[in-house]
Amino acid sequence: MLTLAQAARPGGPGEDLVALLAAVCDIESVSGRERPLADAVEVLLRAQPHLEVLRDGDCVVARTHLDRPRRVVVAGHLDTVPLADPPNLPTRLVDGPDGPELWGRGTVDMKAGIAIMLALAADLGRPGVEPTCDLTWVFYDQEEVEAVRNGLGRLARNRPDLLAGDFAIVGEPSDGGIEGGCNGTIRVEVRTRGVAAHSARAWAGVNAIHLAAPVLDRLAAYVPAQVEVDGLVYRESLGAVGIRGGVAGNVVPDACVVTVNYRFAPSRSVDEAEAHLRELFAGFEVVVTDAAGGARPGLDAPLAAAFAQAVLAVTGGSPRPKYGWTDVARFAQLGIPAVNFAPGDPLLAHKDDERVPVAQLAPCRDALRAWLLAGPVDRGVGAVSRS
Amino acid sequence: MLTLAQAARPGGPGEDLVALLAAVCDIESVSGRERPLADAVEVLLRAQPHLEVLRDGDCVVARTHLDRPRRVVVAGHLDTVPLADPPNLPTRLVDGPDGPELWGRGTVDMKAGIAIMLALAADLGRPGVEPTCDLTWVFYDQEEVEAVRNGLGRLARNRPDLLAGDFAIVGEPSDGGIEGGCNGTIRVEVRTRGVAAHSARAWAGVNAIHLAAPVLDRLAAYVPAQVEVDGLVYRESLGAVGIRGGVAGNVVPDACVVTVNYRFAPSRSVDEAEAHLRELFAGFEVVVTDAAGGARPGLDAPLAAAFAQAVLAVTGGSPRPKYGWTDVARFAQLGIPAVNFAPGDPLLAHKDDERVPVAQLAPCRDALRAWLLAGPVDRGVGAVSRS
Repeated sequence: MLTLAQAARPGGPGEDLVALLAAVCDIESVSGRERPLADAVEVLLRAQPHLEVLRDGDCVVARTHLDRPRRVVVAGHLDTVPLADPPNLPTRLVDGPDGPELWGRGTVDMKAGIAIMLALAADLGRPGVEPTCDLTWVFYDQEEVEAVRNGLGRLARNRPDLLAGDFAIVGEPSDGGIEGGCNGTIRVEVRTRGVAAHSARAWAGVNAIHLAAPVLDRLAAYVPAQVEVDGLVYRESLGAVGIRGGVAGNVVPDACVVTVNYRFAPSRSVDEAEAHLRELFAGFEVVVTDAAGGARPGLDAPLAAAFAQAVLAVTGGSPRPKYGWTDVARFAQLGIPAVNFAPGDPLLAHKDDERVPVAQLAPCRDALRAWLLAGPVDRGVGAVSRS
Repeated sequence: MLTLAQAARPGGPGEDLVALLAAVCDIESVSGRERPLADAVEVLLRAQPHLEVLRDGDCVVARTHLDRPRRVVVAGHLDTVPLADPPNLPTRLVDGPDGPELWGRGTVDMKAGIAIMLALAADLGRPGVEPTCDLTWVFYDQEEVEAVRNGLGRLARNRPDLLAGDFAIVGEPSDGGIEGGCNGTIRVEVRTRGVAAHSARAWAGVNAIHLAAPVLDRLAAYVPAQVEVDGLVYRESLGAVGIRGGVAGNVVPDACVVTVNYRFAPSRSVDEAEAHLRELFAGFEVVVTDAAGGARPGLDAPLAAAFAQAVLAVTGGSPRPKYGWTDVARFAQLGIPAVNFAPGDPLLAHKDDERVPVAQLAPCRDALRAWLLAGPVDRGVGAVSRS
């Protein structure tokens, strides 16, 4: 098997992104078991004289120190969701309707992004290949599990200096376009309380499930907003993700809990989202169980605008809003504009038939490479102030 | 400790119903662990020459064979729900606001009835104490658990001949009055089906919990009927006893299930009850999960009417409808009119502070004894045909 270092060597097999992506995918790295892949990534990066390499658990960070006035951070998670049954590894090359596709776990989420990061980390900064920004490459663990285990979150808490930069690109699949920002998310429990009784004498109790009828009525009638933020339209979602009530088949239930998830546009704060839910469920007990703010797309920042234009020129992908919460929001919390950019259809992430069109790989690498070599030149998009 | 046989001896300590009841209660008999009590009951009954005694598992059946034209069956379950924490046994005599009370598990549900049955089984049929009907005393196990384990049900399936009779009295607590018949019960699941999606892109799915809003609306608006059956008014109940939906905090749920329990008057059949629910939830998937018909009070049968009059004369308790499903309905299924009759407030059954007023014990025993000695004499209530 090709080592990553061999596969990524510029001018060598590294020119073959498919071989590199296959090598990255075929080192299994389900969340919590990223060590072999992190080791291979570390070996590859330490072989590059132009990079400073740091290791934190199963995170690997590599940086150039070229004294550029600006620094761009490119980050990607090494882990995948579990394999399909039967296993969708090792990868295999399949002739698809529009050309060859690489099939297998991680090809979309998000080892195509990792392969491009590895190829460019080995390439940019070596003699004669000089980016106009300093670069920080962040490979991290445990993105596909509970947020508390997220390797990027651990770095943000323990070593925020390693994430410092003027702009960040997260290599989550975006089909070769740019997906900017993300909606926030808040979960609340809307609770009703009744009085328990034997169901044969229901009049002696108060049915908490019946009391929840207006909660479902309001949810069913709710029309989610579409909100324009920095030029992108964010579509909100609001609905029940769970309901539970009842203790036994012969008891009038004294409690019912409706769990509601609201995905709100990044122009709203968490506090505003909570206030909106409290207004919607006026008269009911509302308890917030978790919340995370969204991230504005930041495409009005000069670096981001230039990147968007570079991507449009090479891949034809124009900026779109991201709906799911991604690690882009972590950079937003650190004050760093960030976008998602990588090959692969996000709707195929986590699926048994996860696969990436080979034809998307080189253009994505080339668009990112071209922009990092050309720098954030104002091509007429200009430095628009954040609105 | 007094043995049951000593405690129940007529003219001896058996005259002291409190001592007998305490002895019965202090032999713990939580469902499934009735053996020691069943053994003690069997020993007591086998000591009575006027009784034929049969044993089936932890059921004990004792019968007179006096060649009377009619037979009355008196039945009671030996088991109790689990003890309270801290344990509410052994029993203790406490001065209550209206006189002494015996406190402890089983004093109400239903060992007060068992004590009276034991005292009368030892008494009625011995020389010089001649009942006008033949008598069958049925002591059975596992009433407080799943219906499939019920000892009376087992006898009804395997030895229906042992339960044959013209009238049955079940010693469930009725506060010294007569509780006649019982409502039927039917449980259905009302199900909605949606389309799963990520909750960040809720518009790609159909929320099954929102689809259940009209189900809760109809339940909240429903007004249960009150139905007169054989002179007693049965109050129905209909409501949700459970609701569940949702698979994860970030998924639009594709299924929601509302479990509904309908307690219907004994004038309705199970089929009619099911049809009523299907009409109420028209447009929704309705699946019956379990059902049991009710029992008409049967108080228009001559034996029952005479018994009601005898009870009224001694304890002052007039007939009332029973709402919960009790083993009275098993006798109804065998074609035998049956009522509940025993000391104890049914609302104290299963409670940690379960207790019975001592003053209720002797009148209940005396009312039953007087009627069994006097027989079903027509005292003017007359033989009304079943309506």
